[in-house]
Amino acid sequence: MYKPFLTALLTGLTGALLHAQSATSIGSPNQAIRLTVQNNPAGEVTYQIRYKNKPVIEPSGVGIKLSRPQVTLNRFTITAVDSAKVDDTWKPVWGEESQIRNQYNELIVSLQDKGGSGIGMRLHVKIFNDGVGFRYEFPKQAKLDHFIVADELSQFRFSADHRTFWMPGDYDSNEYLYNFTKLTEVDAAAALAKEKDIALQSPIGPNAVQTPLLVKTADGLYISLYEAAVLNYPVMALQLDKKTLTLTSQLTPDAVGNKAYLQTPTQTPWRTILVSDKATDLLASRMILNLNEPSVIADPSWIKPQKFVGMWWEMHVGKANWPLAGGKHGANTANVKKYIDFAAKYGFDGVLVEGWNVGWEDWFGNWKEDVFDFVTPYPDYNIDSLTAYAQGKGVRLIMHHETSGSVTNYERRMDAAFQYMVKEGINTVKTGYVGRIIPRGEHHDGQWMVNHFQRVAEKAAQYKIMVDSHESIHPTGLHRTYPNWMASEAARGSEFNNAPTLGITPEHTTVLPFTRLLGGPMDFTPGLFRMRLNQFDSTRTTRVRTTLAKQLALYVTLYSPLQMAADLPENYEKHLDAFQFIRDVPVDWAQTNVLAAEPGDYVLIARRDKQSPNWYVGAITDEAARDLPLNLSFLEPSKTYEATIYRDAPTADWDTNPEAYVIEKKTVTAKTKLNLHLAKGGGCAIQFVQK
Amino acid sequence: MYKPFLTALLTGLTGALLHAQSATSIGSPNQAIRLTVQNNPAGEVTYQIRYKNKPVIEPSGVGIKLSRPQVTLNRFTITAVDSAKVDDTWKPVWGEESQIRNQYNELIVSLQDKGGSGIGMRLHVKIFNDGVGFRYEFPKQAKLDHFIVADELSQFRFSADHRTFWMPGDYDSNEYLYNFTKLTEVDAAAALAKEKDIALQSPIGPNAVQTPLLVKTADGLYISLYEAAVLNYPVMALQLDKKTLTLTSQLTPDAVGNKAYLQTPTQTPWRTILVSDKATDLLASRMILNLNEPSVIADPSWIKPQKFVGMWWEMHVGKANWPLAGGKHGANTANVKKYIDFAAKYGFDGVLVEGWNVGWEDWFGNWKEDVFDFVTPYPDYNIDSLTAYAQGKGVRLIMHHETSGSVTNYERRMDAAFQYMVKEGINTVKTGYVGRIIPRGEHHDGQWMVNHFQRVAEKAAQYKIMVDSHESIHPTGLHRTYPNWMASEAARGSEFNNAPTLGITPEHTTVLPFTRLLGGPMDFTPGLFRMRLNQFDSTRTTRVRTTLAKQLALYVTLYSPLQMAADLPENYEKHLDAFQFIRDVPVDWAQTNVLAAEPGDYVLIARRDKQSPNWYVGAITDEAARDLPLNLSFLEPSKTYEATIYRDAPTADWDTNPEAYVIEKKTVTAKTKLNLHLAKGGGCAIQFVQK
Repeated sequence: MYKPFLTALLTGLTGALLHAQSATSIGSPNQAIRLTVQNNPAGEVTYQIRYKNKPVIEPSGVGIKLSRPQVTLNRFTITAVDSAKVDDTWKPVWGEESQIRNQYNELIVSLQDKGGSGIGMRLHVKIFNDGVGFRYEFPKQAKLDHFIVADELSQFRFSADHRTFWMPGDYDSNEYLYNFTKLTEVDAAAALAKEKDIALQSPIGPNAVQTPLLVKTADGLYISLYEAAVLNYPVMALQLDKKTLTLTSQLTPDAVGNKAYLQTPTQTPWRTILVSDKATDLLASRMILNLNEPSVIADPSWIKPQKFVGMWWEMHVGKANWPLAGGKHGANTANVKKYIDFAAKYGFDGVLVEGWNVGWEDWFGNWKEDVFDFVTPYPDYNIDSLTAYAQGKGVRLIMHHETSGSVTNYERRMDAAFQYMVKEGINTVKTGYVGRIIPRGEHHDGQWMVNHFQRVAEKAAQYKIMVDSHESIHPTGLHRTYPNWMASEAARGSEFNNAPTLGITPEHTTVLPFTRLLGGPMDFTPGLFRMRLNQFDSTRTTRVRTTLAKQLALYVTLYSPLQMAADLPENYEKHLDAFQFIRDVPVDWAQTNVLAAEPGDYVLIARRDKQSPNWYVGAITDEAARDLPLNLSFLEPSKTYEATIYRDAPTADWDTNPEAYVIEKKTVTAKTKLNLHLAKGGGCAIQFVQK
Repeated sequence: MYKPFLTALLTGLTGALLHAQSATSIGSPNQAIRLTVQNNPAGEVTYQIRYKNKPVIEPSGVGIKLSRPQVTLNRFTITAVDSAKVDDTWKPVWGEESQIRNQYNELIVSLQDKGGSGIGMRLHVKIFNDGVGFRYEFPKQAKLDHFIVADELSQFRFSADHRTFWMPGDYDSNEYLYNFTKLTEVDAAAALAKEKDIALQSPIGPNAVQTPLLVKTADGLYISLYEAAVLNYPVMALQLDKKTLTLTSQLTPDAVGNKAYLQTPTQTPWRTILVSDKATDLLASRMILNLNEPSVIADPSWIKPQKFVGMWWEMHVGKANWPLAGGKHGANTANVKKYIDFAAKYGFDGVLVEGWNVGWEDWFGNWKEDVFDFVTPYPDYNIDSLTAYAQGKGVRLIMHHETSGSVTNYERRMDAAFQYMVKEGINTVKTGYVGRIIPRGEHHDGQWMVNHFQRVAEKAAQYKIMVDSHESIHPTGLHRTYPNWMASEAARGSEFNNAPTLGITPEHTTVLPFTRLLGGPMDFTPGLFRMRLNQFDSTRTTRVRTTLAKQLALYVTLYSPLQMAADLPENYEKHLDAFQFIRDVPVDWAQTNVLAAEPGDYVLIARRDKQSPNWYVGAITDEAARDLPLNLSFLEPSKTYEATIYRDAPTADWDTNPEAYVIEKKTVTAKTKLNLHLAKGGGCAIQFVQK
């Protein structure tokens, strides 16, 4: 695991670490970030991070508490300090860039328990130009083999009462809106209480918040606390001590209160601190990916980024329904055929079909174990004929596996379910985990479920199946290791536009890139063209709080290799000119330039297609109208491009006139400067086709 | 489910039940047992049982408490009373008899919750000549669909402080010795504390006892409280109130404290009360089987009762070991070949092989999930060559699936494991559940595990595999419904002869037929010929507390369609004359006559082979020597038989001279009367071959 590259990266005397109150410090490759590790006479080990000499993390403790053997590992003797520097690049199977630089300095501090247990562990730190990751490593050793984690004692102490974008701590749901308050104003209980559309809440406590946590300091730093490579370990939330402004890791417990069952050699996930004085740097960071292991899939040629339509939103808006009974069954043969025709006509790769299989009569809220079998279509859904029909048109169905949270049931049927997919020629599955988990007492975010998601990714890979997981753990860069686990929901997605209470605020999509999206692609399901959701039920007051142009821009600002065009075919056919952008926009990029961004306010990103020299720009704003200058210097010099600009009409407004847009074409070069005017809740999407 | 046969079985006026303090009463077909149901003005419903006018169960409450919907169903209006009488016979696939009479009167009392929930349920009672079974039935109804059981409120109130054979209540182990005390002297905590060889104890409480509970009254009644057809519901223990001499059902909780998740239409298992003034009647009772549903296996021709030897006891006595490492790996190719040769030479059907697969290094005590994969043999075990070799000799290997309690792991691998067995031509599996259950927080006796065992039986049947489950729930007659689930351990078996603390007392095997064996066959693994277990370790003081003749007799007194000859081939080869009985004794019977029995003292049973007119007798005693008269009137009149009598030598004694036996042959007829002298801890086995 650890390969020692002994170099002279350290400032301070390494040897001094062996003595009382010793300290060592290491910089990022560009020296903007400096990390200092200290060991005081009592044995406490702390780390401290500064960015351009501004405080990021004040000296904060590290350690871990075990329940078997029963020992708290938080007083140490430092027995060795090793360091190394790494600078390489790698090519993701798909993503925001065709190659990624992985440059960091690292520090490996060997710690011996001062309490006499004989246990040794390592604090492994990697310092990138855009942040720091650290984890605990437990080598194979005589005094530690199998062990149980009671609590992780990692701390993150801030220097001041920063403003923060936070979500209330919840072991089962990450589908909250973000709150923006000072640290001392965090009130998780109030945040939970106002979210009436989240059916399953498992609150951690009044001062608990989820990761990623985004902080904005008064002196201009953007700091994100998160985690990378969460495998065989629960998801980490944070407990806030408002007096000391300290956040302490809060792991998701299992059914009996334990946090993790581990065996040496092993390690925890990385605890990550991204920091910059430029908000755009956070969005451009690839540190989370770099902290993950390389792909385990030797031949990834079957993994294809794709766009899809499907039998889904029409259930949400009341045109159809999942169950067979009730006369509104959406997933019937004729209806799905229409989606296949639509996908084929407009060049989409896939057609998602929800509600295709027996079990929906009785699927939700009963903690029922044997809910779906994943292989029995409803009698009105002729899957054999549809897969053949789709194949003839160059389209594939996308399978839906709603588990209803009954994961034991899914695991025992997963092989049969995947074999059925292979038989039907379907190679993408959307999984769902709505409801309380079975094994009962387990949480969505616990170690058992983390292991489940890994098992799904691995087994799906055996069957060459791509996975889009909903109600799953927040992604932590594992799509590097399992590039067939292409996207997850794991946040409040577009379906909440139809939620009656809070819906999706205009600012939500300007926060996501700084929080949830840091970990990996989201199946947000953008592309809604009809903003008032009363199409099939005139009494319905739910609505989409964006302009139509912003819906287009989301395809650029919210990256995913699986992108849905979520609205109904009939709604797209009324706006085929705007729909053209969704048809054209790629889902795999050669290059990404984050041009401007401010969390909660706006995001402006340009990306270059992996298959062509064409560029695409997405700009979105929150509830405020604004103008964003767009310098086209990213375009190839001496080339001309035809720009197709999909923008808000002058009168557009998410509230009063959301569907008003203008499409214009312009010839531009790298020297062109545009001004993008975004309406309230608006956006702008631009395609630049090289001539 | 319920077919109304309205008859005039009831005494008292049915109509009267609709009024306050009404009562109705129904007798067993032979009128020996009388059951009375009362409904008092407060709505309480009680049942009462008398046997030949002696009290069996004093008026005791019925009911159930739900946590969702939150309602206690124990105050009722009786809305209807139906009755029926049934008398038919059926043929088990295998068993103690070739056909079983199923004769009972039944009462179905329709109950409406008096608390206003609108919920209706039924108390369904069947009265046989040998006992009573009752259960709760929940029809499909508007006010009850999915529901969660918080507690069952079934009560069993005794009329006096009876003496009782009891085991301490434990959600995870049923491998205790039985204690014999008055009801008021039950001390489960003390019983648990003295059992130092049970690694995993999950005590229910100081006054909790397991079922089956055996009671012996001062006026000569034998009463057994148990359950039948435990499916989709947890195992029931009993909480004893010593003041009122009342036992109340105590269901095994799941990880979050719930007892069962049910959906209408559904029902609880049967609560059974066997009663007789003759102890032998309890052993002859087939009521538990009759309360189970008929076989679900349409073509059971592949299900074969069998005898087997195997790689097992030599691990217990220290000759070999399960793991590869350590130099004593038992399941190596050469060693297993010897067992195959031995089985072929002496006419055994199967060879059990434990320790064959990777994982034993690390299998116990760590609550480890991914412990075995069930398809990877150790490198020194050439399973392909061995299965071929065995096949050539007319012998089959028996697979071993130790789950280590990690049932999620087993369930996700079970298909592959069974497919592997089919590939290797193996059609019997011994499963094991040693250790704490995963899903963590679940217990061996909880609903989730009950469902697991049903899944195993069903899936095994799909692959035409026979199952012998160890560390599983106590059997409740489910071998009628799943005749491929042939045997279970679920009690203290022969392996405890090697347990250092209490071992197996001489009386234990005289209690088992009155308790554990009422529910179904046990893989007790009798047949030990070497009683001091110091063969490979001279310091070892563990020992078998029987004579050798008693080991033979156990093949008759402890019925199982799977019987192991548990000792080492080299020990059998020193006593081939005695071994002949094990070779000869059948494992499937046409008829069973329980000739004499007293719990905790002695058992004398005669059984007729299903394939021949030959009879076999087994007689065992506890620590006391005794003489049992044996009247051979069960033999076919006018035929002569050659009796081969395997009896204790005159000097035999389990303590001082356990291996001394005498074999003698006699010609006998139905008129012959024998006297069987049993040594202390001794026994006698007889084969009667018709001439």
